This record gives sequence, structure tokens and C-alpha cells, in this order.
Amino acid sequence: MDDSAFENALHELRTDRVQGASELARRCLDLLAASAQAVAASESSELFDELVRRCDRLIAARPSMAPIHNLLTAWKSSLTQLDGSSLPELRAAAAGRAREGIKRSKKAMVKVMENGAGYIGSGKTILTHSFSATVLGVFARLKDRNIRVIVTESRPLNEGYMLARQLSDWSIPTQLITDAQLGLFATQADLVLLGADSLLPDGSLVNKAGSYLLALAAHDKGIPLCVCCESFKRRRAGLGKLHLEEMEGAELGTPVLPGVKVRNIYFDVTPARLIDRWIDEAGVHKTGILSERAQGVSGR
Amino acid sequence: MDDSAFENALHELRTDRVQGASELARRCLDLLAASAQAVAASESSELFDELVRRCDRLIAARPSMAPIHNLLTAWKSSLTQLDGSSLPELRAAAAGRAREGIKRSKKAMVKVMENGAGYIGSGKTILTHSFSATVLGVFARLKDRNIRVIVTESRPLNEGYMLARQLSDWSIPTQLITDAQLGLFATQADLVLLGADSLLPDGSLVNKAGSYLLALAAHDKGIPLCVCCESFKRRRAGLGKLHLEEMEGAELGTPVLPGVKVRNIYFDVTPARLIDRWIDEAGVHKTGILSERAQGVSGR
Repeated sequence: MDDSAFENALHELRTDRVQGASELARRCLDLLAASAQAVAASESSELFDELVRRCDRLIAARPSMAPIHNLLTAWKSSLTQLDGSSLPELRAAAAGRAREGIKRSKKAMVKVMENGAGYIGSGKTILTHSFSATVLGVFARLKDRNIRVIVTESRPLNEGYMLARQLSDWSIPTQLITDAQLGLFATQADLVLLGADSLLPDGSLVNKAGSYLLALAAHDKGIPLCVCCESFKRRRAGLGKLHLEEMEGAELGTPVLPGVKVRNIYFDVTPARLIDRWIDEAGVHKTGILSERAQGVSGR
Repeated sequence: MDDSAFENALHELRTDRVQGASELARRCLDLLAASAQAVAASESSELFDELVRRCDRLIAARPSMAPIHNLLTAWKSSLTQLDGSSLPELRAAAAGRAREGIKRSKKAMVKVMENGAGYIGSGKTILTHSFSATVLGVFARLKDRNIRVIVTESRPLNEGYMLARQLSDWSIPTQLITDAQLGLFATQADLVLLGADSLLPDGSLVNKAGSYLLALAAHDKGIPLCVCCESFKRRRAGLGKLHLEEMEGAELGTPVLPGVKVRNIYFDVTPARLIDRWIDEAGVHKTGILSERAQGVSGR
């Protein structure tokens, strides 16, 4: 993983619109494992400095994504314990810890899927928005249990089509709607299930734009909203103002008109008061505030 | 206007996705004026029966659109006063009353635009959804008064682009967003301005899908929502269950997938509790219930 390969990977990370935040965090750890093994260095302090520099640049590339911040910060902290290692030892240990981080985060994701499927159970109609690998994993576990799913297009890039295609392959009866119809279809659902790009310290949800509108409609119609996400998606307190990433307006494919600015903010924030259940690897929680969540809530 | 020309016009009416409800109502009156003058008939009762039949078919073609029901029902009632007229008298009077209906409805629309512009005033940022000729008329009256506008795409047919194009021509600074970003941009607006396809008897709004989501977001963020529409857009009580028209799923342009049903309901219902002001030809009202509206509210 030389400098130019790393720069390319960094560019891909910045422009990726398809992968969710935890997939991207794992990709970052994978890049750091490869860097640990391949970066040119004549002594361990030189390698250490370069790994920290790359880690910081990866974190800065996607500031809205708490999982990248959390998994990479944890990895960076673990490097300091390797002080005094020889160059070969540092290479092996830094790469090993990055791979352990990947493994732990995958295990957490699987546990969230199991907890979500166990909580939801058979025979439900589930409304979701955008594409979440965790939500997809819940559907995979419920696919022979008589569920029906309502999915949105999720403009501008329509990742909802990808979800619809997978549900079609699994023969799960599906309705596909425009994002604007979320309010019309909320009442057809038994529950709303969303993944998360991040959770804020108070349990608020940072997710694909439109999630807040869906949460408002679900709340107004009395349909419960469940968020399923691994605990490492929680943004730590004291990180400063949340930055909601904006992408190129050209992604929308609208006509170019003088004086008309096309806006393309990818994420919105759903306040914790609109969320009924938080599902993470530890269980199903009635509150999204971390300190109160330690106890957990099993079942409904 | 022979039978086949009328059938073509009826088909166009059913499939029109661009014109608003009051433009379509005027087009119906125009068709009836042409029919009154041109339908083959040997005596006035024969003409009368054919005009009533055509009127009823036009009303049934767009059941969600109260203006069509109201303007055409009023015209049909006025025909009964022409009982005993000769065939040429009936032709002239029926056509004349249809043209008067068109004139009255245009006059009401202009008055609504003036009332809306007067109420909103200079220097505001206005968020709207879909394309409303009445809302456009308000913008026309405010175009030199330092307003800024936020418009949505309005999937599936993106009539928001048409609005953005007109605002660009008028040099009104405009932001164009996906429907899913409505919640993100509500806080940037001083007010939300919507037209109406119909109003329900209790003041609820029937409008392009997504209007309900926008209303929820505006309410949640404390941004006032104003609906501007002529009083003939009010659906009468006792008309039975409201039917929300659904169009072809193919309009969305999504992939065709087994087991995936594409839904395309055009209108949603925004409860009166989410609306702050109703602007009609008589003035600006704080309540949407007809009986209480008679008094009117001028100014804020």
C-alpha cells in the first residue's frame, strides 16, 4: 500500500455513496492493516507516525460517520501500547489489531441482526428507507417468516432499488414507493425499521435524508420506529458540531438553471423523542441515552 | 366537439399529470362550452341529456379533484334553469354559463394570488412542494421583493423543475432539493406555501404526495404553513369516501422485479391541525372550517 494507492483508496472512500458507515469503517481498518504491512519505513517510529497520519486522514474523510471515527480511534489508541516494539513486531501487531477490529465489528453487526429479527418476529409489515446492511440482515433472518416490506427509492441514487432487488430474490412481498409517499404508507406498516449512519450521544439518529420525515409520519400515525445499529456507531460526546455531508448537486440529474442552486445533503437528524426502540448487539433498549442503556430491555 | 373528439379529451384529462385541479376544471368547462355549441341534437332535451352525460363523465374522470366536481356541478345546476329554452337558446346559454364559470374561477385565482402576496410580503424565504399555478402567481407578485424560494423535485414527474425554471427566469434566488430533504430545509424557510388539489370540509389539504411530510416537518420545526387556494377547491361534505388517485407504477422508472409492486399514489392528506393559514379569494383565515371562516382574518 504505497502513497498513491492510499490516495486512491482515500478518494474512493470520500466518494462512496453505496456502502454504509460500518462497511466503510471496516474498509478503513483493512487499509490500515495493509499499510502496516507495506508502508516503507526504516524504523518503528517512522512507521508509527505514518500509520497515525493515515488513520487521521481516513477519519477526516467522512466526518458524518461515527463508526469510522470510533473504530479507527480505538485502533490508534491500541498502537500506543505497542511502544518499544521492533519494526517487524509493530507491522504484525498493528495489522493484527486492525483485523481484530474488523472481526469484532462484524460480530456486533450479526448480533444486532439477530436481536432485530428476534424482536420483530413473524408476520409483520415493515417499512424502511434507504439501504442498510444491518436492516438487510434482519430481513434475511425473517425471509421465511411471512413478512412484507415497503421500501423507498431513496433519491438521489435510488439505493432502495438495490434493497428491492434483494427482497425480490428472497421472494419477500415488497412495495416500492417514492420517498414522497412515506406518509401515505406509514399506516400500512406494523413498524418502521431503520439502520443508522451514526447515533448522537442523546440517541438521536443520523441517517439518509428522509429518515426524519419517515419518523415524523410514523410518530403522527402511531407506528413504532426501531433503529438497529451497532454500539460503535454512537458518536462520542464532545466531538464538536455535527457536520452533515453534502454531495455534488449534479447527482440529482436536474436541469442546470441560472440562479438555481441544487442541494444534496445526504443525512438528516431524527430526534430521539421520535424513536421507540434502539436495537444493538446487547439487546433491545427503550431509551437511546447511553448511560441509561446499560441495563437493556429484553423483549418489548 | 363530436363523440370521438370528446373521448380523446376525456382521455387527456384522465392522464394529465401536469395541470393543477383548477386548470383542469376550466378545461372541462371549455369542453362543455364547445359541446354545447357543437353536439349533434335535433331538440333541446336531446342536447340537455348529452351535456349532462358529458358533464358527469368529466366529473368521474378525476375523482380526487374537488374543483372539477364543484365547478361542473354548479354548471349542471345552472342548466336546469334553462328548461323550456329552444335548441339554439340552450346552446348559447349553456356555452355562455360555462365561459362565465371559467371567468369567475380565474378571477378567484387572481384574488388568491394577491391575498397570498399581500400576506407574505417582502424579504421572505419560502419553501414549497410540487407545482401550483396559484403559488406561482404569488411568486410572480413578489418577484421584485427580495424573496428566496426552496423547491422540491416532486417525484415521480419532477414538476418542481418546471417551477425552478420559471423562478430562474424571474431571477428569484432558488434552491432545488430532493423531496427527501424537506425536513433538512424546513428550518431555512420563513414559511411554507402550498397550493391545493382540494380542501376537505374540515380544512384538511389534499395535495401532491409529500405535502403531508412537509407539513409535519414545518410543524415540528415551528415554521408556519400557509395553503392558498380558491374556495371552489373545497370538497363538499357528504360526497363519500375520498379516493386518492393512483397512477401507473411505470412512471417511476424503477426496475421491474418479480414480487415487487411499484406504488404511485399522487396525493396525500395533510390534517387541518398542521395548517396555520388558509388563503382564499376572500382573505386570510386562521381556521380551515368553512362555517367559522366566513368572518375571515385580515393580515396576520
